[in-house]
Amino acid sequence: MLKSLVLVFTFAVATVSGSAAHHIKTGGPKPITEADLLAAQQSWIDALLAIAETHRSGGDYRTLAGDIIDAAYNYAHAPVLFKPTLTHGEQTFRYTREGALAYFVGGDPNFPNDSGFALKGWVAVEPKTVLAYVEGNTALTMGHFTFTNQDGSTVTVEKTFGYRRDDAGDLRIILHKSTIPFNPGN
Amino acid sequence: MLKSLVLVFTFAVATVSGSAAHHIKTGGPKPITEADLLAAQQSWIDALLAIAETHRSGGDYRTLAGDIIDAAYNYAHAPVLFKPTLTHGEQTFRYTREGALAYFVGGDPNFPNDSGFALKGWVAVEPKTVLAYVEGNTALTMGHFTFTNQDGSTVTVEKTFGYRRDDAGDLRIILHKSTIPFNPGN
Amino acid sequence: MLKSLVLVFTFAVATVSGSAAHHIKTGGPKPITEADLLAAQQSWIDALLAIAETHRSGGDYRTLAGDIIDAAYNYAHAPVLFKPTLTHGEQTFRYTREGALAYFVGGDPNFPNDSGFALKGWVAVEPKTVLAYVEGNTALTMGHFTFTNQDGSTVTVEKTFGYRRDDAGDLRIILHKSTIPFNPGN
Amino acid sequence: MLKSLVLVFTFAVATVSGSAAHHIKTGGPKPITEADLLAAQQSWIDALLAIAETHRSGGDYRTLAGDIIDAAYNYAHAPVLFKPTLTHGEQTFRYTREGALAYFVGGDPNFPNDSGFALKGWVAVEPKTVLAYVEGNTALTMGHFTFTNQDGSTVTVEKTFGYRRDDAGDLRIILHKSTIPFNPGN
Repeated sequence: MLKSLVLVFTFAVATVSGSAAHHIKTGGPKPITEADLLAAQQSWIDALLAIAETHRSGGDYRTLAGDIIDAAYNYAHAPVLFKPTLTHGEQTFRYTREGALAYFVGGDPNFPNDSGFALKGWVAVEPKTVLAYVEGNTALTMGHFTFTNQDGSTVTVEKTFGYRRDDAGDLRIILHKSTIPFNPGN
Repeated sequence: MLKSLVLVFTFAVATVSGSAAHHIKTGGPKPITEADLLAAQQSWIDALLAIAETHRSGGDYRTLAGDIIDAAYNYAHAPVLFKPTLTHGEQTFRYTREGALAYFVGGDPNFPNDSGFALKGWVAVEPKTVLAYVEGNTALTMGHFTFTNQDGSTVTVEKTFGYRRDDAGDLRIILHKSTIPFNPGN
Repeated sequence: MLKSLVLVFTFAVATVSGSAAHHIKTGGPKPITEADLLAAQQSWIDALLAIAETHRSGGDYRTLAGDIIDAAYNYAHAPVLFKPTLTHGEQTFRYTREGALAYFVGGDPNFPNDSGFALKGWVAVEPKTVLAYVEGNTALTMGHFTFTNQDGSTVTVEKTFGYRRDDAGDLRIILHKSTIPFNPGN
Repeated sequence: MLKSLVLVFTFAVATVSGSAAHHIKTGGPKPITEADLLAAQQSWIDALLAIAETHRSGGDYRTLAGDIIDAAYNYAHAPVLFKPTLTHGEQTFRYTREGALAYFVGGDPNFPNDSGFALKGWVAVEPKTVLAYVEGNTALTMGHFTFTNQDGSTVTVEKTFGYRRDDAGDLRIILHKSTIPFNPGN
């Protein structure tokens, strides 16, 4: 409404020039961009493959997995809304760091159904993000990820991520839901 | 660090009394509470059952479904990250109002696989939200919903919702992912 | 930490191409930019000068001022943190629409000290914003505004604005503090 | 609209009980409350008086002032929109830590007009916050602060603060504008 009103009048108004704008010192968290979101999902992929390769080469994949979870997920600040692909029943949701670590590398007697998703021989992951929503300090994505195994087989899952930007500028996963696509023939 | 520093000194500082605090005029969007999130998911349930009942009683369930989608989802402002339970393939993600409406009540030739989820005879839905994350104007939930059919059968799905609070104070769904739980025997 | 870890490994990872990124449908409120802030302050200036000109030409400046306040300020949703240049004493802070209207055009017996700031013969305003802070849906600016009167005189004030972006995408003033610069000779 | 629609129907809907709600694990930054804002302004007051007292007692008030600025203001992350009470001219806005430190304790040849606001003999400060606005991770306040000097005199200034909550949960000052009230007799 303001715009239509002021169009009625014509003034010799002193306008802010573009050069003046360049001298404004502006702070605050940077907005989350699509590039940030694509980089964050690529970091997750790189991390998964790093664990897989470390496992194959006999390295300390467990310590690596813990470091990666600490860097990529928000467990230090809040329970994470994490539903991994293969979990089910009582331990479907892995809201603690321990539950996430058990899912990725197994070997935790408290999570007896976990055999280690990152240890299943993945050699490549192709992301295809279809949708994103960004508001303030948080962002959401939805799409598919296709995992290629060392035996040449592939599996495609639906991936949903939620992120927040922390004070250091890094995106941390606050939500992660990965699911096998619905099969109408089942 | 500030707190430890100032504890060293003792002053007769004029403190703000509780009664003074009551006179501050405070504005801004209300924070999203757990009660808000539970109310929002109950609204979604009530809406689904209202469509189902209108269908059974021969009412105009299609118009009702459209109104409900407009009220509950954020399609007026942005693509919604919506992955319904039964979608698959090319039309997995229903980011438009049309795709959502087709999913709930079917009858849209552009979405030929949709037979109308809301028309399948649901008589009750029991939500069990396990996790939530709230930051600023947005919030996320994760848990299970159990749907009871008129034939007495039940089906449980994993439900993830994302919400934003609009200027009117209402929560709108910005993300909705519903999935059949992983079955290790499949 | 994640980045340093993954640099150790080299994989033939499927990367997200730029073209793939272009197909992501992204929603959510647009981040507030410096250009948005400069446009918002220019709208405020244009509005003030429109009231002044309407007053000079014998138009209905009071209705115009009310419309402008409704369009530019956030009074419809919350008390506004408004400290105009010339207010003092009990009525320093104009947190209601009525108090703002009285300040700009006077003539309100409830605000007897107000003679109408917009009616004082302004013909130009030169903004010089020095600082800005943007976070999520809100933003702050600080700088000077120089007002030129029809008699050729000028006055410079310190201007601080706070804005929020509403659901329609418009910036609304949530804070406005305008003050005469400190004069060390006083 | 949703509410009015669903009121037409009556179902034996399974409702979420209060006890169920208690089991939701919820994370995310805590909303900023009035109590948080009052505590933050009291911390600022305590800090100023701590510097004043350390100065009087011959302590290292300069180091203390630096520590306090680091703890209370957001200089580590962004320029701060800081207009202190007594600044004017070219150095009106103190957007760097150095400019803030010079204002509070003086002794910086780069800020030759600064004699040290915190060293002027303050013994008490009475805050009277009138307005607040909270949205997401940021908040604004407006009101008066009355400073009492060791000589018994008082001075009242208009105080506006802007805060953001950091990842550690602490409020940091992103905006601070302090001004001598307008004197219509000047």
